[in-house]
Amino acid sequence: MYWTNKIKQLNWSIILRIIGFVLIVEAILLVFPLFINFLYHDFQTMAYVLPILICLGTGIPLSKIQSKKGFIFARDGLFAVGLSWIVMSILGALPFVLSKDIPNYINALFETISGFTTTGSSILTDIESLSHANLFWRSFTHWIGGMGVLVFVLAIIPGSNDRTMHIMRAEAPGPTIGKLVPRMKQSAMILYKIYVFLTIVLILLLWIGGMPLFDSFCHAFGTAGTGGFSIKNSGIGGYNSVYIDVVITVFMLLFGINFNMYYFLLMKQFKQVFKNEEFKTYIGIVITCILMIAINIHSLYPNFLEALRYAGFQVATIITTTGYATCDFNIWPMFSKIILWLLMILGACAGSTGGGLKVSRFLIIIKKLKLDIQRLIHPQKVDAISMDGKIVNDELVHQITSYFCCFMFFTFICILIVSFDNFDFETTVTSVFACVGNIGPGFGICGPMGNFSSFSYLSKIVLSIAMLVGRLEIYPIIIFIVPFLKPVKLKKRM
Amino acid sequence: MYWTNKIKQLNWSIILRIIGFVLIVEAILLVFPLFINFLYHDFQTMAYVLPILICLGTGIPLSKIQSKKGFIFARDGLFAVGLSWIVMSILGALPFVLSKDIPNYINALFETISGFTTTGSSILTDIESLSHANLFWRSFTHWIGGMGVLVFVLAIIPGSNDRTMHIMRAEAPGPTIGKLVPRMKQSAMILYKIYVFLTIVLILLLWIGGMPLFDSFCHAFGTAGTGGFSIKNSGIGGYNSVYIDVVITVFMLLFGINFNMYYFLLMKQFKQVFKNEEFKTYIGIVITCILMIAINIHSLYPNFLEALRYAGFQVATIITTTGYATCDFNIWPMFSKIILWLLMILGACAGSTGGGLKVSRFLIIIKKLKLDIQRLIHPQKVDAISMDGKIVNDELVHQITSYFCCFMFFTFICILIVSFDNFDFETTVTSVFACVGNIGPGFGICGPMGNFSSFSYLSKIVLSIAMLVGRLEIYPIIIFIVPFLKPVKLKKRM
Repeated sequence: MYWTNKIKQLNWSIILRIIGFVLIVEAILLVFPLFINFLYHDFQTMAYVLPILICLGTGIPLSKIQSKKGFIFARDGLFAVGLSWIVMSILGALPFVLSKDIPNYINALFETISGFTTTGSSILTDIESLSHANLFWRSFTHWIGGMGVLVFVLAIIPGSNDRTMHIMRAEAPGPTIGKLVPRMKQSAMILYKIYVFLTIVLILLLWIGGMPLFDSFCHAFGTAGTGGFSIKNSGIGGYNSVYIDVVITVFMLLFGINFNMYYFLLMKQFKQVFKNEEFKTYIGIVITCILMIAINIHSLYPNFLEALRYAGFQVATIITTTGYATCDFNIWPMFSKIILWLLMILGACAGSTGGGLKVSRFLIIIKKLKLDIQRLIHPQKVDAISMDGKIVNDELVHQITSYFCCFMFFTFICILIVSFDNFDFETTVTSVFACVGNIGPGFGICGPMGNFSSFSYLSKIVLSIAMLVGRLEIYPIIIFIVPFLKPVKLKKRM
Repeated sequence: MYWTNKIKQLNWSIILRIIGFVLIVEAILLVFPLFINFLYHDFQTMAYVLPILICLGTGIPLSKIQSKKGFIFARDGLFAVGLSWIVMSILGALPFVLSKDIPNYINALFETISGFTTTGSSILTDIESLSHANLFWRSFTHWIGGMGVLVFVLAIIPGSNDRTMHIMRAEAPGPTIGKLVPRMKQSAMILYKIYVFLTIVLILLLWIGGMPLFDSFCHAFGTAGTGGFSIKNSGIGGYNSVYIDVVITVFMLLFGINFNMYYFLLMKQFKQVFKNEEFKTYIGIVITCILMIAINIHSLYPNFLEALRYAGFQVATIITTTGYATCDFNIWPMFSKIILWLLMILGACAGSTGGGLKVSRFLIIIKKLKLDIQRLIHPQKVDAISMDGKIVNDELVHQITSYFCCFMFFTFICILIVSFDNFDFETTVTSVFACVGNIGPGFGICGPMGNFSSFSYLSKIVLSIAMLVGRLEIYPIIIFIVPFLKPVKLKKRM
């Protein structure tokens, strides 16, 4: 009763209209793999034409819905974001099923959600058996999901204002979305331009390095979105090129940085970049972890430079939550594996395409914990935490500690359900962290040389939800699960 | 500089005086195993006389220190609690070393800290090779550590007032210490009486059930303190008695309940017990987990009743963080193991002798997370969480979410250090959870049929710190580690 009433109060006309536009955009995006289908004579035309027609057939009428109330609340934004991603994934999985490349729908949905959420976990045992169109679409979903569709939709559709866009911040990863310029539409477009530019540079660099053009496109999409789907069974390691390893390592790290930093660079505001605490911490963690792992694994490789190469790639792929692999880190010593596991939980910078908890949240929690201890020693002093020279208000700090609790609790519940599959402890625990953090590979059976094909349907569904929860930062998805729970008993404040 | 100044500001005269009294009490407690030594002709008299003399030799002069300032702050309390436990453990390890039963001091210290913190992790490969005196002292440390020494010391020494006692709440497990009667001294004494009474009942029940009297004493100490040291290599399972299993299962669960409940029962305030949310949740979790595990493992046992017996014992031992074992749950299906792992993190009720996060903290975090989600849906409403019909103030809620973050962060750091030993993922991760939660056994090498003997000295030291951090709920111990960190940069509030 409580929850059904709440759901009725939602501004459904605006929510459905937004979903209509999202579907139209998806139809347009599906034209790209359709084109690839013709180019490579895949004979899978219907597998793309049909989903395009479904998207347009439902999207166009929905986009014409006129809203009675012009304004929406945060809750409408959460529902719109969550529902858009679910609908997008449900339809995005169709080409795989219709082309019979992934005949089982749950598998196809897992693969598509893994794509859109930029996770990169795969249920495929033979990736190279897919058609070019499907390989392209699979990697393209990473690129689409990396920057998000909703903000893009709102930036281009008529009638949306700054307030509406602000509501959609639920889609942007990280605790705060930086306002670059006063108007949200404008800042969104700047970020998309940076994203496209960096992707093109990467495609060219890979192509110059000897990677076929088609492969360059797909791997650049996976890098830019911090996704991790490769089109080769052996992954990036299959090219066995130091040049490609280094280029992808560098670009993974670049896409893990808050995009606002690139805007500051463009505006020549270098001071803004170098005083940014999250950026400095991110760089510091990356360098420390690469060195620690390289020292730990150097006996496994012919020389220290090779150890650095593999440590660097693997640290970059995990901290940015991309998930490409150039070696089987499953066989590394436990110290290196635990570092990677902790990086899985940590994730990249806020405002990047990466997943995980985000470095800035981690920084604020650490500061808060240190402040708590200082307060124990000197309780009279009432001071506040600062970040980048500004006070972090208490409300945000509490939101972040709650977020961490929620993240851990959700992860524990998923681990419990996945444990039904009776895999070993390592596989059970890290598979969930790999999905909820949008990384891709875990350890054990789902390691970089393994895949998720042996997981049960129940686990695949739970892990799919976990990927969405991780990408959309819990609330837009959990809002769909919660109605089944009893509302918490509250007391009116005096 | 910052931290050295702070340390100089502490009220050292009171802190040292308290430690003096703690040492005198420890000397008195050491007389019990000395008596056992004579009774069983162990010929280890000097191993106990020497530590007694050291305790008295330092304790008596310290206890005579006159304090200049009569009042103390929370920080003095934290230092006094942390330092007392460290000093108590350092001296409590001496009998094992001097008697040459555990010749290595780091091993002896690990075993003693494991005892006092009621963890029950052991480095011994052959427990039965120890003398009676040492076996008694080893189990006795659980009983001493269960209810804590400081509150006892403060309740009996002259000159301490309610304010001083309140400061010592750092030693009591759980987020809030219930005030039973207006005077703290009085309520402490009531709790000690309940503790002694329940222990005696358990000793008698075990003895009647056919366990030798000496064994009954030792196992009752381990149960009452929710410790888990057995004096048999095969643990409680070695007695192979349904009666003993059931009695210990029931008493473990009883010692995992907030002791205030017993006070309410004594006062015939039954309503207070049945409306207590933590108590109801605890019972609910225990029953649910026993049933889930029994169904999951029933194919491993001849009938469902047997499965219930083993599931019941193991759930009780883990949720109360005792750590006895009647079977090797290492070989159970992963679903049951993950349930046990989650119970390790959860722990028992606040105000019991058990460790872990505590059910009440868990309840408050869950309520807080549900409230956050409800607020997303209906943001205008400003309501508060209630517990047992009373409003939980926001400050406490934030302390608890911070506590959870701190707990997880500390655990992750310990896991990273323990991973140097290069054990498998399961052993590495659960060994730390088993120690920081004061449980005892983990999975893998440190499972119920294994031990911690193969861990490196570095890991043993880190796990010893983890046990103290778990028992004293982080702050009294972390306050000793933090001085090496840079203080966090703060901003004055406007």
